[in-house]
Amino acid sequence: MKALLQEVRRNPLLWLLVFVPAVFVAAKLEPEAHTLLFVLSVLAVVPLAALLSHATESVAAKTGDAVGGLLNATLGNLTELVIALTALRAGEHMLVKASIAGAIVTNTLFMLGASFLLGGIKHHVQEFNGVNARLQAGLLFLATIALLVPSLAMQTSSEAAAEFAQTLSARLAVLLIVAYGLGMLFSLKTHKELFASAEHGAEGEAPWPIGLALAALAGVTVLVALVSEVFVESVQKAAEDFGMSQAFVGFIVVALVGGAAEMTSAFAGARKDRLDLSVGIALGSASQIALFVAPVLVLLSYFIGPAPMALDFWPGAMVMMFFATLTASLVTNSGRSAWFVGVLLLMVYLVFAMALYLMPPRP
Amino acid sequence: MKALLQEVRRNPLLWLLVFVPAVFVAAKLEPEAHTLLFVLSVLAVVPLAALLSHATESVAAKTGDAVGGLLNATLGNLTELVIALTALRAGEHMLVKASIAGAIVTNTLFMLGASFLLGGIKHHVQEFNGVNARLQAGLLFLATIALLVPSLAMQTSSEAAAEFAQTLSARLAVLLIVAYGLGMLFSLKTHKELFASAEHGAEGEAPWPIGLALAALAGVTVLVALVSEVFVESVQKAAEDFGMSQAFVGFIVVALVGGAAEMTSAFAGARKDRLDLSVGIALGSASQIALFVAPVLVLLSYFIGPAPMALDFWPGAMVMMFFATLTASLVTNSGRSAWFVGVLLLMVYLVFAMALYLMPPRP
Amino acid sequence: MKALLQEVRRNPLLWLLVFVPAVFVAAKLEPEAHTLLFVLSVLAVVPLAALLSHATESVAAKTGDAVGGLLNATLGNLTELVIALTALRAGEHMLVKASIAGAIVTNTLFMLGASFLLGGIKHHVQEFNGVNARLQAGLLFLATIALLVPSLAMQTSSEAAAEFAQTLSARLAVLLIVAYGLGMLFSLKTHKELFASAEHGAEGEAPWPIGLALAALAGVTVLVALVSEVFVESVQKAAEDFGMSQAFVGFIVVALVGGAAEMTSAFAGARKDRLDLSVGIALGSASQIALFVAPVLVLLSYFIGPAPMALDFWPGAMVMMFFATLTASLVTNSGRSAWFVGVLLLMVYLVFAMALYLMPPRP
Repeated sequence: MKALLQEVRRNPLLWLLVFVPAVFVAAKLEPEAHTLLFVLSVLAVVPLAALLSHATESVAAKTGDAVGGLLNATLGNLTELVIALTALRAGEHMLVKASIAGAIVTNTLFMLGASFLLGGIKHHVQEFNGVNARLQAGLLFLATIALLVPSLAMQTSSEAAAEFAQTLSARLAVLLIVAYGLGMLFSLKTHKELFASAEHGAEGEAPWPIGLALAALAGVTVLVALVSEVFVESVQKAAEDFGMSQAFVGFIVVALVGGAAEMTSAFAGARKDRLDLSVGIALGSASQIALFVAPVLVLLSYFIGPAPMALDFWPGAMVMMFFATLTASLVTNSGRSAWFVGVLLLMVYLVFAMALYLMPPRP
Repeated sequence: MKALLQEVRRNPLLWLLVFVPAVFVAAKLEPEAHTLLFVLSVLAVVPLAALLSHATESVAAKTGDAVGGLLNATLGNLTELVIALTALRAGEHMLVKASIAGAIVTNTLFMLGASFLLGGIKHHVQEFNGVNARLQAGLLFLATIALLVPSLAMQTSSEAAAEFAQTLSARLAVLLIVAYGLGMLFSLKTHKELFASAEHGAEGEAPWPIGLALAALAGVTVLVALVSEVFVESVQKAAEDFGMSQAFVGFIVVALVGGAAEMTSAFAGARKDRLDLSVGIALGSASQIALFVAPVLVLLSYFIGPAPMALDFWPGAMVMMFFATLTASLVTNSGRSAWFVGVLLLMVYLVFAMALYLMPPRP
Repeated sequence: MKALLQEVRRNPLLWLLVFVPAVFVAAKLEPEAHTLLFVLSVLAVVPLAALLSHATESVAAKTGDAVGGLLNATLGNLTELVIALTALRAGEHMLVKASIAGAIVTNTLFMLGASFLLGGIKHHVQEFNGVNARLQAGLLFLATIALLVPSLAMQTSSEAAAEFAQTLSARLAVLLIVAYGLGMLFSLKTHKELFASAEHGAEGEAPWPIGLALAALAGVTVLVALVSEVFVESVQKAAEDFGMSQAFVGFIVVALVGGAAEMTSAFAGARKDRLDLSVGIALGSASQIALFVAPVLVLLSYFIGPAPMALDFWPGAMVMMFFATLTASLVTNSGRSAWFVGVLLLMVYLVFAMALYLMPPRP
């Protein structure tokens, strides 16, 4: 408990924890104040995500590389997973898909781009281990192709096409999880020497004792789930009040909120000239979502929520994922970076964000 | 003749030759047993393809690099060419196009991927001459772009568009053949030192004497043509019986059967850590089909079969060819490989195969 | 004046200057002789473009790298800008867009490809500084993505979509100009040592004195503007007489005419084994048009001409720009070249040119 309090004192991000009780009080007293609830739940999720991230790393530090890697994979995007599960239970498939696509695009363009820019402002030219970047980019590329196929099939809106997309999605989900598992086997076991300096997790911060870490993991997960419920309920209405399109909220706001904690780590790594860490977090997180979170949601949709969910995305989302992945591939290929590389990635992100913001509502 | 028999004894694949007479007998006695004829013709084509491949290499070994290369180009994909010609004569343009697209996708994803995987299981990290890979990938890229244009034009189904696609296809065919010829001039003549260790053809196996090789070439070609006829006639009906979609048969089954012999060589090369050979066969064969076999078929369609054939493909085929080529480009760029690279390629192939298998029949 | 005359004597291209007065005389005497006016204006623009290019470089040589770079950026594609402005004032948005897309495709495929081919015929293997190529390719990639978004939005032809595309285009225009400015800051200021040998401008030719250069700049710009007016007025009718499609004229003819002067410099550089220069001119000019000329035209369209112009392109133009950019990225990645690389680029260009030439007129 003392370690936890110390952490809170050291990390100003955690002061936002005060908003966690505030959300629940507000949801009780003012259940119709959507904008207020939206703002409060965003502010509350950020420090919870940071705690979750630190707890996961503490457990991973104890259990060794193989189990730690698995844990990291399962829990690293826990915030996103919990938000998506809440939306899935509510039958909001569009929001689930927007948050999946948004997390992939935000991680590959915004998190990676801002890391390159922040690192590049401080360091003239930075080098990083290209092997990990190529592995993650390869996995992302595979996922993008896999997601493209049911989306294309859904272009012809017949019943047969919908059934086809559904059956295909379920099988592709299994395929992606297998590919993700093999990717971990490759990077953590058979060829781990190639990934030498690309260790995940923020060194310098002392890991928590295992008991505290596990307790925090359990407790914070429950809190995230509860806050997410308020978030998912309020986000749509609040978006209207702010004049934001639904697509913008799902793609940009949810993704930035869900990834806040990882971004803190990635940016800190970049400024310390540890770009391996930043690239690993950004692309690793994106490929986790594409090859693990998204497939798991598809499989869970058979048990949770009103109807099974297919992996079809609207054409705009496909285009964004394809270009985000292709840009990340081309950019990380050389294993070197300077500030302008970050600018390029951020500019592509801005193009997408602008288009989503201005997009007219569907009739 | 003794060399031929020796070959048969050493190579278990050739025991399948027993199915060649079996096909003809069955076609005579049971002309309506489509499934039986399909299975028998598949089993008969495989050893014939292997013989054809070995005969071609024996002739090429005698005639030197330049003529040998030309021969290899002309005859290396002879099985595919003969199957496609048979379908062309029957006016089955859809089957011709499916088998072209399928051969390109199967060679770049399955043959290359399985080579990387098989090689990578035995050898930790493998290196290969990236120059040849880049040349072939560049040619494939050109062909993909060339095939894209008439396909896009055919999206608007007017008569003018169809005429445009037809005229354009004929000119593009000439262009692709010229590009292919220049590519051979480049790799076999002006810059052959860059392609040093990328020799085609399986060393270790003694080449046949030239007389036997030429006789085998002639005889086996006739046999392949006869078996192909049975195959093309039975494949559609058999597919229905097996519950496979037409697209799956054209794309996957025909491509795997037609490339069986080359695959044997490519996989053997990979296990002997001679990845140059495997990459050369896989990508070389794909670019042969795209820049030589396909254009020749277009030009021949003006003389053979009921109507000239355009180079337009259905959107799904275009997407698959584009992604297969792009994946192969990105993957072979570094000139290094490990088992997981093979897994990634095979996974992309599986995504496509799954989609084709589950695809609902067109109404 | 003497320097100018000396220049004219040395450079046979400038003998074409005789067509400048010829255009004006013909336009006065035979205002309906569209084909004659078209041919004369094409012949007159070429030497004017060459003079403009040399004057710009002379000014740039005096003012130092930073200002010189800015001048080069502003004036390097002045011919294209003036032609486009004339078309914009006439409300010919289709012609403006075709000439933008055409200039990008022609510079990345034809100018770069012919440079590689001409250089490669004389020199076995050529090396160039890949950093500049990657920067320009990255900028082009960003621009292609930015142009793709309004184009996709316009696919659904509702009024809301048109308004959305218009608003988005204006903001994207600002974004692209900012990205272009940051790219110049990067290459001319913060990281200029990485771009060491990629100097722009034709050495060997003595620069003009600054007074002459500025006077030439002003005078020639006016002449180009006047000739462009004749060109834009006559091009449509003349195209019909020649049996060329509108798309072919806008894409190919205008782009080749507008880039004639830069091509002379790029090809000369390639033959002298100074491929840095050629790649810099070809890709630099393409990215100038995409990130500076095109956005400036969008912003100016609010003040000039009948209606504001959006950045939406027809699907075929998007496909061509995307593939031209992707091909250039893949091809320049290694920093080495041989003649066949040039052939590949030229072949892709030929595929596009052929398709545009044969394209049936829109009904």
